[in-house]
Amino acid sequence: MTETRWLDAEEQRAWRSYLRAVRLLDEELRRGLEEHGLSHPEYEILVRLSESDERVMRMSELAASVVSSRSRLTHTVARLEREGLVVRRACTRDGRGVECVLTERGMATLEAAAHTHVEQVRTHLLDAMSREQFLALGEALSQVSQRLDPHGRLTV
Amino acid sequence: MTETRWLDAEEQRAWRSYLRAVRLLDEELRRGLEEHGLSHPEYEILVRLSESDERVMRMSELAASVVSSRSRLTHTVARLEREGLVVRRACTRDGRGVECVLTERGMATLEAAAHTHVEQVRTHLLDAMSREQFLALGEALSQVSQRLDPHGRLTV
Repeated sequence: MTETRWLDAEEQRAWRSYLRAVRLLDEELRRGLEEHGLSHPEYEILVRLSESDERVMRMSELAASVVSSRSRLTHTVARLEREGLVVRRACTRDGRGVECVLTERGMATLEAAAHTHVEQVRTHLLDAMSREQFLALGEALSQVSQRLDPHGRLTV
Repeated sequence: MTETRWLDAEEQRAWRSYLRAVRLLDEELRRGLEEHGLSHPEYEILVRLSESDERVMRMSELAASVVSSRSRLTHTVARLEREGLVVRRACTRDGRGVECVLTERGMATLEAAAHTHVEQVRTHLLDAMSREQFLALGEALSQVSQRLDPHGRLTV
C-alpha cells in the first residue's frame, strides 16, 4: 500500500464543507420534489420528455439520457404511468419498440414541480453566494466531471 | 404561484456541472468503499468511533453524530457487528444503555478503506483544480450549509 496523501487541515475543512452542503441541498431538493409526489429520477424523466419533440421518447433513448439501467427505468416509468403522468405505447414512427409520452397531466405536474425545484436551487445555492462565486464553482466542478467522465457518458 | 426565477444560460450550465460532478464523485467514492465491504454510512460510523476516546461511543451519541435515525443506526451497527468490525455491550461507565466499540478488525478495515477513500477524494476532486479553487469552493459551499443548517445539526 502506497503512502496515503492525507488532506491537510484547510483541505479537510473544505472537503467537509463540500460533503455537508451537498447532503443538505440534496435532502432539501428531495423534500421539494416529494411535495409534488416525485422522486429525483422521476422528475428527470419528465424534464427529458418535456424537452423532446412532441414530448415523446423511445424507452431506449430515455434510458440512455437519464443513465438508468433498463430495468430500473421500466420500474420508474411504470409508476409514472400509474399516476397518469406518462403513457407507454408502441412506437408510432416504425412500430418497433416502445415509446413513452408525457401526458397533459404530466406536463402540469412537471411545471409545478419545476417551479419549486428551481426556486430551491436559487434560494439555497445561488443566493448563498455571488454570481462570480457560483460560476467559479461550476467551472471547478466541470473539471471534476471532465476527469471522471471525459466522454460525457452521464447526462444530467 | 409567484413567477419562477429561472436560471439563465450561464447559471444553468454551472448548476448542471454541479449536479454532474457531485453524482460522478459520489458514485466513485461509493465504489471505492464497496471494495472494502463498506457503505458510506458504515464508513462514517467507523470514522466516528476511531476518533473517540478508547474507540467507544454510546449508541445515542453515535446516532446524533452521524445524523441517523435510531432504528436505521441500529440496523447498520448490527451489520457491522456481524462482520466483526464493532461490538455492542452494556455501557461500562454506568451500566445504563448500550455502547458500541470499534474492534481491532474494524480499525484495520477502516485504515484500508480510508486510504482508498482519501486517495479518491484527492485524485478526483482536489487534483482536478488548484488549491485556491478548492478552498474557494469549500468557502462558497460553507455559505450554503450556513443558510440551510445555521445551527449545525448535521455533522459529517
